Amino acid sequence: MKTFLDCIPCFIRQALDSARLAKVDEATQERLLRVALKASLEMDMSQTPPAMSQEMHRAIRAFSDNPDPYREVKDRSNALALQWRAALQGQIQEADDPLEAALRLAVAANVIDYGAKSYVSEDEIHESLMHGLSAPLDGDIENFRVAARRAERILYLADNAGEIVLDRLLIEQLPPGRVTVGVRGAPVINDATVDDALCAGIPEVASVLPNGSDAPGTILDDCSEAFRDAFFQADLVIAKGQGNYETLSDVDREIFFLLKAKCPVVARDLGCELGAIVLRQSGVPARASEQD
Amino acid sequence: MKTFLDCIPCFIRQALDSARLAKVDEATQERLLRVALKASLEMDMSQTPPAMSQEMHRAIRAFSDNPDPYREVKDRSNALALQWRAALQGQIQEADDPLEAALRLAVAANVIDYGAKSYVSEDEIHESLMHGLSAPLDGDIENFRVAARRAERILYLADNAGEIVLDRLLIEQLPPGRVTVGVRGAPVINDATVDDALCAGIPEVASVLPNGSDAPGTILDDCSEAFRDAFFQADLVIAKGQGNYETLSDVDREIFFLLKAKCPVVARDLGCELGAIVLRQSGVPARASEQD
Repeated sequence: MKTFLDCIPCFIRQALDSARLAKVDEATQERLLRVALKASLEMDMSQTPPAMSQEMHRAIRAFSDNPDPYREVKDRSNALALQWRAALQGQIQEADDPLEAALRLAVAANVIDYGAKSYVSEDEIHESLMHGLSAPLDGDIENFRVAARRAERILYLADNAGEIVLDRLLIEQLPPGRVTVGVRGAPVINDATVDDALCAGIPEVASVLPNGSDAPGTILDDCSEAFRDAFFQADLVIAKGQGNYETLSDVDREIFFLLKAKCPVVARDLGCELGAIVLRQSGVPARASEQD
Repeated sequence: MKTFLDCIPCFIRQALDSARLAKVDEATQERLLRVALKASLEMDMSQTPPAMSQEMHRAIRAFSDNPDPYREVKDRSNALALQWRAALQGQIQEADDPLEAALRLAVAANVIDYGAKSYVSEDEIHESLMHGLSAPLDGDIENFRVAARRAERILYLADNAGEIVLDRLLIEQLPPGRVTVGVRGAPVINDATVDDALCAGIPEVASVLPNGSDAPGTILDDCSEAFRDAFFQADLVIAKGQGNYETLSDVDREIFFLLKAKCPVVARDLGCELGAIVLRQSGVPARASEQD
């Protein structure tokens, strides 16, 4: 997805929010705001929004002399999700369609996104999970079910800390031993890294593969060769969240995007309601059908 | 009031909203967004927010080749307020304290501000008027009452179209023959100009004085000499709205500010709740008390 004009004011607002979250003084906040303004001014609008965000968050980490300003936020989100996980696992097991229930909860947990908002409260997360279980699913789960059953190699691209704890519940519904979970190669915003995958217990159910990049999405050219190989060799790619959608929606392979549409620009691009629980299949119908 | 860091993302968002309201094509929207980014980058934060906004709206008028992009919005707001005026006049006459009721309605009508928001619905205006009549007044009306009774020359600085129609109801509660209504010297956003004063029937109750400036506030150095004379010679200055507050709050004379606090930055500067109905007396205690 290219960058839209509406992304710019939002990006400037995010820069200020992130500077404050990194607890820098007001002069540094102004300096970071100017970095964001300059980046916006020089922006190539054909790039994806996470490309601009990546630059900005590098500046925030450098100016704040903090390699991971969102560590506290991420720890809190992981702890909260871990606290709820057993109960949600119970709800999935009792559901008529455990795969769909797990998928809905994993999408609803995508509300924990400190790129789209500057603060996400416990109440908001809880409301989103309840909404996710009952709201209409915008997408066709049957294609996803078939693709998941057939795939030998599944690459599951995680999005945020906290969310990744509930991603595990969906991974438990996929064929065992076939899933690799891709995470960011280095901290950026509250995106999930290897640390969060470990905290979520992902190694108990899947392999973990850092993508080698610090973009808040999946910019393939910026990822490691090992990650790109895994990406193109997978029979099924599941990509969580807006950042992964924004960076992969124009990539030439089949991808199942699972996300909560939290911003009007992404919702418009997807042709869905704001706040919708979205499952979208994109790209060329690929390996899953070739293997029939 | 100086420009705060939080004004910048809001200013960039306003630029895009205004460009769209001026109905320019997407390439021109991007060009205007870049003007706003450049202006923000070069911004002297000790200037007031309307100083930056003035430059931006000049660019919007130039690029859209439209000297008054908000004319339609202003006409609609005036027509709506005129439609409600007789009923509100009745409520003022029946009130225990007609001056306070008129003041509350005039402040509540300050919700019609296309600088603070990109769209203001009829429902929002109606709700604001009802809220204005019943909500606590943040300020001391007794000082205002005394100052209004004593003043020989009252300068009433209007803010927006539509709002000015209800300002007339407050002017009717002030001593007759003493009020001059200051309006913008040229169109900017939906701010009231001479045309709106005429539409509101202001000449039936007061003189009208354009300030000679196209800033969305009162930047005295940018106003005509005639306006500055009127400003400093008045016994009482009443300034409506955020733009007038932002540009006059540090001026060295007594001013009564009447406004609805619509943005968090202004609310923080005033030390009031967001959405509050505010009456604030500022500056050196001046002529009103000298004349005792």
